[in-house]
Amino acid sequence: MNVITISREFGSGGRELGKRLAEALGYAYYDREILEKLAEQTELDAGYLERVLEHGVADQTYPIHIGRTFAAIPAFANHSTSLLACQTQIIRQLAQKGNCVIVGRNANVILSEARPLRIFVYGDMKARIARCRSRAPEGEKLTDQQYEKNIRQVDKYRARIHNMLCDYDWGDVRGYDLCVNTTSIAVKDAVAPLAEYAGIWFAGREKKPE
Amino acid sequence: MNVITISREFGSGGRELGKRLAEALGYAYYDREILEKLAEQTELDAGYLERVLEHGVADQTYPIHIGRTFAAIPAFANHSTSLLACQTQIIRQLAQKGNCVIVGRNANVILSEARPLRIFVYGDMKARIARCRSRAPEGEKLTDQQYEKNIRQVDKYRARIHNMLCDYDWGDVRGYDLCVNTTSIAVKDAVAPLAEYAGIWFAGREKKPE
Repeated sequence: MNVITISREFGSGGRELGKRLAEALGYAYYDREILEKLAEQTELDAGYLERVLEHGVADQTYPIHIGRTFAAIPAFANHSTSLLACQTQIIRQLAQKGNCVIVGRNANVILSEARPLRIFVYGDMKARIARCRSRAPEGEKLTDQQYEKNIRQVDKYRARIHNMLCDYDWGDVRGYDLCVNTTSIAVKDAVAPLAEYAGIWFAGREKKPE
Repeated sequence: MNVITISREFGSGGRELGKRLAEALGYAYYDREILEKLAEQTELDAGYLERVLEHGVADQTYPIHIGRTFAAIPAFANHSTSLLACQTQIIRQLAQKGNCVIVGRNANVILSEARPLRIFVYGDMKARIARCRSRAPEGEKLTDQQYEKNIRQVDKYRARIHNMLCDYDWGDVRGYDLCVNTTSIAVKDAVAPLAEYAGIWFAGREKKPE
């Protein structure tokens, strides 16, 4: 099974790269699907899960809704560790289905035994702010400082969760097979050579011992 | 001018990658040429310069020869800083000649204004030991521990020199545009997609502001 995991700094275009790589290679693409499955299993709202699991927002501070109904958070929801464990199971199940690209959620660590091609996507702060601004919902008016603060906050949380699971720090080259800086290249242009690289990497993996 | 700089962990195959990329792209390739030019300018032996500049070996401990004659080291040679400054000039001159690949010697930092494509090549210790062993001169019989010690020593020196010149640590993704882990891919197989990536990157660089 060929699994590509995309770890990414916020605003670096990692999600776009993952999606385009999946398309180019004919692989399944898992991103929000994971949250949706988790929402199904836990009966919690996907938006709530996203805030807790991906942005590290303290769950107590948010009113949430389950399905279409606003409701108190079940005790279980306070345990983000349980949610992470549940998410881990979902990621393992998805990876067994066939070739795929999985964005985020520490799939690089969780699936290490499957020897995925682990890609880290990153970029300069200035480039990431520009990217966030260009993709902001209509009417969102943030200053560069506000974007930077958001970006740092999300990255800090991603690093924190990653570093609980792994010996290497989040973003340390040692934890990845390829690290791609998107500051000076458009993601759409990077896809073709990276897809080719992936194909060669998977073929080589079979020859090289672990 | 398109310049590719290859920074690399010892034993990771960075030199081979640089050479093959230069061939694939039709670029000039600079590696030992830099040492030879430096030897010419300083009238010091290239082997001696290599030991001092690339392995950080204390010059006093080595008998050296200038040209074909063994001789005392001129006072100048003790100043590895002066040698590094001289090397910097040579690198700048070479980069102005035309498209090229430069291996090592902190060309990524020295040439930053020319916006080179900065590649970092690395690998797991086990893979690097295996590579060193497979390329060892006939009769060299070192244990894995000895290889590891040598590798760590060279890397430590490379990091030390780099970190004197640059805000980012040696091997920190932030200092590079692409980081390639050669643990699970043969260097020769990686060349075609990376050469393609380089071409696209240089084309994109023109469009994206610094």
